[in-house]
Amino acid sequence: MAFLNKEIRDGDNQDLTEERRTATFDTDKMAEVIYGSEKLARRRREISHAVSRIPELADSRPLPFLDRFEKVTEGTRKLSVLDRHLAELIDVNDNGEALHLYHEVMGMEGHPLALHEVMFVPALIGQASDEQYEKWLGRAKRREIIGCYAQTELGHGSNLRKLETTATYTPSTQEFILHTPTITALKWWPGALGKSSNYAVVVADLIIKDKSYGPHPFIVQLRDEKTHQPLPGITVGDIGPKMAFNGGDNGYLGFDNFRIPRENLLNRHSRVEADGTYVRPPHAKIGHSAMIRVRSHMATGQGWLLGHALTIAIRYSAVRIQGFLEDKSHEVKVLDYQTQQHRLFPAIARAYAFIFCGFETIRLYDQLILDMNSNGNTSGMADLHALTSGLKSVVTHFVGQGIEQARMACGGHGYSMASYISEIYGVAIGGCTYEGENMVMLLQLARYLVKSVELVKSGKANQLGPMVAYLAVADHKVNLATGPDSYVKMFQYISKRQSWKATEKFLKFMENGDSRDVAWNKTAVELTRASRLHTRLYIMETFIRRVESVTDIPVKSALTDLLNLHLNYELLDVASYALEDGFMSSNQMDFIKNQLYSSLEKIRPNAVSLVDSFQFSDMQLRSVLGRRDGHVYQNLFDWAKSSPLNKTDVLPSVTQYLKPMMEKAKL
Amino acid sequence: MAFLNKEIRDGDNQDLTEERRTATFDTDKMAEVIYGSEKLARRRREISHAVSRIPELADSRPLPFLDRFEKVTEGTRKLSVLDRHLAELIDVNDNGEALHLYHEVMGMEGHPLALHEVMFVPALIGQASDEQYEKWLGRAKRREIIGCYAQTELGHGSNLRKLETTATYTPSTQEFILHTPTITALKWWPGALGKSSNYAVVVADLIIKDKSYGPHPFIVQLRDEKTHQPLPGITVGDIGPKMAFNGGDNGYLGFDNFRIPRENLLNRHSRVEADGTYVRPPHAKIGHSAMIRVRSHMATGQGWLLGHALTIAIRYSAVRIQGFLEDKSHEVKVLDYQTQQHRLFPAIARAYAFIFCGFETIRLYDQLILDMNSNGNTSGMADLHALTSGLKSVVTHFVGQGIEQARMACGGHGYSMASYISEIYGVAIGGCTYEGENMVMLLQLARYLVKSVELVKSGKANQLGPMVAYLAVADHKVNLATGPDSYVKMFQYISKRQSWKATEKFLKFMENGDSRDVAWNKTAVELTRASRLHTRLYIMETFIRRVESVTDIPVKSALTDLLNLHLNYELLDVASYALEDGFMSSNQMDFIKNQLYSSLEKIRPNAVSLVDSFQFSDMQLRSVLGRRDGHVYQNLFDWAKSSPLNKTDVLPSVTQYLKPMMEKAKL
Repeated sequence: MAFLNKEIRDGDNQDLTEERRTATFDTDKMAEVIYGSEKLARRRREISHAVSRIPELADSRPLPFLDRFEKVTEGTRKLSVLDRHLAELIDVNDNGEALHLYHEVMGMEGHPLALHEVMFVPALIGQASDEQYEKWLGRAKRREIIGCYAQTELGHGSNLRKLETTATYTPSTQEFILHTPTITALKWWPGALGKSSNYAVVVADLIIKDKSYGPHPFIVQLRDEKTHQPLPGITVGDIGPKMAFNGGDNGYLGFDNFRIPRENLLNRHSRVEADGTYVRPPHAKIGHSAMIRVRSHMATGQGWLLGHALTIAIRYSAVRIQGFLEDKSHEVKVLDYQTQQHRLFPAIARAYAFIFCGFETIRLYDQLILDMNSNGNTSGMADLHALTSGLKSVVTHFVGQGIEQARMACGGHGYSMASYISEIYGVAIGGCTYEGENMVMLLQLARYLVKSVELVKSGKANQLGPMVAYLAVADHKVNLATGPDSYVKMFQYISKRQSWKATEKFLKFMENGDSRDVAWNKTAVELTRASRLHTRLYIMETFIRRVESVTDIPVKSALTDLLNLHLNYELLDVASYALEDGFMSSNQMDFIKNQLYSSLEKIRPNAVSLVDSFQFSDMQLRSVLGRRDGHVYQNLFDWAKSSPLNKTDVLPSVTQYLKPMMEKAKL
Repeated sequence: MAFLNKEIRDGDNQDLTEERRTATFDTDKMAEVIYGSEKLARRRREISHAVSRIPELADSRPLPFLDRFEKVTEGTRKLSVLDRHLAELIDVNDNGEALHLYHEVMGMEGHPLALHEVMFVPALIGQASDEQYEKWLGRAKRREIIGCYAQTELGHGSNLRKLETTATYTPSTQEFILHTPTITALKWWPGALGKSSNYAVVVADLIIKDKSYGPHPFIVQLRDEKTHQPLPGITVGDIGPKMAFNGGDNGYLGFDNFRIPRENLLNRHSRVEADGTYVRPPHAKIGHSAMIRVRSHMATGQGWLLGHALTIAIRYSAVRIQGFLEDKSHEVKVLDYQTQQHRLFPAIARAYAFIFCGFETIRLYDQLILDMNSNGNTSGMADLHALTSGLKSVVTHFVGQGIEQARMACGGHGYSMASYISEIYGVAIGGCTYEGENMVMLLQLARYLVKSVELVKSGKANQLGPMVAYLAVADHKVNLATGPDSYVKMFQYISKRQSWKATEKFLKFMENGDSRDVAWNKTAVELTRASRLHTRLYIMETFIRRVESVTDIPVKSALTDLLNLHLNYELLDVASYALEDGFMSSNQMDFIKNQLYSSLEKIRPNAVSLVDSFQFSDMQLRSVLGRRDGHVYQNLFDWAKSSPLNKTDVLPSVTQYLKPMMEKAKL
């Protein structure tokens, strides 16, 4: 008999199989919705299968047993194996396939080429002139050289205007002199900079005849191509262990009057002539597009990370038995407890929501580009750029929360590295800080919201972008029983109210004499609240649209349950904004709660199948608790027995220190 | 000139000194309040100073550079050094001094004796008979033997009734046969069990003539005292790497029909006679008292852990400069941003609140014991026992949140192990799971709350314990402007409302035909909400009482600012419960927010001094970002340079894998 859940195999843990048999939808079809196409969903399975047949691509030992040195070595070894098999495993021009392959084989802890494909090559493509293309791009693509992107400095995060590294032009030799004037000017954090890369795109303040021209990108050779030794004048190394990504060699980089030829300024957009004349770029790049893409991809990627943790926690919750409910002769699965469901199911809904939202944002962006080209309307683009700042912030925050709840839902074993969830957490939570610190991002979006409210106040509501149009709409009481749209309306009310209140507060401070910056700072927390609400409204709307567009009826039905849970969970979380002035009633609160709890019950039979639909292989999960077959306990024991401390029964430290202590005490 | 902040030294980072000069209170005096006595606060400083003069007690290398093997070795080495210096460093009979010394020297990542003093010796004291005392206690105290406490099993967490390990009595040889019948029966998690301990107190199901007598404690030798090899019939090892505590060797333990003499049943409370007759304990131990103590200590200990993270984040926020406010010629400290203050200051308030709450709970407990002995009134004890379940849960949850916010408030460098905050997080967050999983704990408290509401409903409000008396009090509108008591009243209203609503819901399910367990499960989430509110009310009340009792005026004034922040922050967080039926008004919400934001401004000048008052030494903090002297950047660089990957400029893995890959590409 064929079951709708495609993960069922003979010999699996029976409790898990029992869960899979109750699936009301086809997990392969759900995977198509999650990954956006039948083809990618299928290719992911095929690639995972193909990888599993190449033993050299397997982890030589569980990654948590390796120290940093061993992790970097293991990653490097696998890269060299992968290099030989790439063309047979994937269509190298398909990003989706490449991404999956790297996740599968390399895992999430980083590797020496992590920045080469993602930052170095794109930087060359975006900023090199045609002659520079000729000289560098082929070499980079063939991996004759390995590069990274060095911008952030020890003292300055990513505030470009404050970069201290200088590139001073000397007409006499037609060279730039790269220099690190202070300790805080050291490049710090760039991935793969520490030990792997022999080249880097370095961002430095261009100085010609004592005048600063601001940050510019230079291609710089860091290490000898033969010996890999740092070149004279270059100080480079690894920045040390981190919360996660310890298979990667984030690095520091300092220059001691290091000379590079004039041609090494990447000059697609600007150049310096032999005599030192600076040729301005024809027009300032907007640069929004790359950020919109990166942050939208982050939403999807973070959703997948949350999916990893939830796959582990939900499967283990179906295997783990504890306590009694109705039937006193059989202990129940911990997944049967409402508290466990409430910990995990809203996070499943969010994982799906974030993935959908990321995909839709990219599609929306592509559509806007088309519109812009056809009718020149750019207002939607500003909308979207502002919004993706908030999106990145809201998503990373909730994903971190969700992963930790998933870990704790596994009890003590969640705390073991055998669950691998704390590693997932470490990787995901980094997203709160990189690509724009979350608070800064929220305030960036807030600037847009305040400007929008000011437009409405000055009677120019017609100039609002489509995503903020609701800021000008009059309030009407909402009947939540009429479906998802009523939740959107309620959320719009809440978001609008907060945007207005925060704007009024900000304006009031200025009226009372504060400067714009001071008034802004005094309103900052309220402004971040407005940004979060606006973003969560958008996520909710994209979730609704995605579910509406699904054609497979059983998949759509399961997703509708998840959506209903999401709507009620999210609204309950922010209800106080609507309760405050009586826009929402106590009865409506009871309604929301009842809907919430009944959603949990509805989702219960599909819970395992909803996470199975992510189709993460055991290799990709790297979790003993989250194994597809549910055989947790024997494998936990095997994993522990093979861990490094168990190589000998008696540790040398016992012989050296503890035994003498005990012996002395006996005297 | 003498400053009130005692951490000022010549040569410190000037921005940090500037902050310390604005202290409005004496940090030594604040430390007395934090540590509960002038003596302990002073002794902590003296001990830290004495430790700093013994070079062998310093970390040989920064702990984040060590793998598990090295961490365990380092811990063991230090223990043997400490063993020689103990009497000169501390009064060995003073727990406060011992605790501080171990924190200082051993750090928080665990060590081989971690469970010996805290669990093994107390288990002997509590459960051994006088003859057993004679035989084992002296040896344990002199450290002739090293022991741990083995209860939790692979498949069963700490549900005692479900333990699978058996101890079957055989009258013929007068022995117990310890046996591990299934893989899930393996002892799993006990600290120091894996590699260090040669003895353990093992909890196993006592079986005599095929009849189970439930869990009993046995003292069991695990390893040969000379060779330290596991004895035949014993399987023992380390359970592998964990999220934190990787300097400790949590272990697994299995028995293959392992025989121990009849005398090894710890028989203070029960014994088995030679013929197999079981002699019952005269009365079942209540056992609440130990749990109340442990969980109250956890509240204080977790408050200190949060204090660690905040010390690091606040100091670094005073050193880190970014952006402009009023004065456009000088960048400001990031501590000047409202968002940064809002991230950190409410957490300072919580850290203080949790510490105070833990101390008061223990005092309250001691008082209740006195009362019980004098008038036999035990109602307060049930109150307190229920409450400490909630306390443990609420505190660990908020501490985890607060530590992570502190880490993120440090930007990218927070993510480096040089900040050490992620290690603090790993250690603290374990508390959500051990000593009773948080959800289980909240539901334990909820049982007490429901019983209390049922008392009121049946007209027996006079039987309520003092801590739940408010569940029977009629509602009166509250004027928040009248001070802390009005906040308590508002919180009481909120907590009462939720306890009642959850109870009614639970009863309704039963009326409609659900069994008690099923009805309970359907109400579980609402019940946990009630428990959290009740606990937060208690924390708020203890904070108020503590501040009221402070006699030093400047200290009291600074604490009052912190308390006001706490009251407004907490109330804002749960406002929806009171807004729902109009008990709280929109105007009151505005009032709370205004109070909140003005509290942040008031606390700003004392922020550094409030964390300095924890008086954590640099050794104890182990954080480059959180250094007392504020010299962050040079030390970050030095730390990174000395990290293991930088031993060689060219990693072997580059030579072995990357260089051949690059060379091949050139062909």
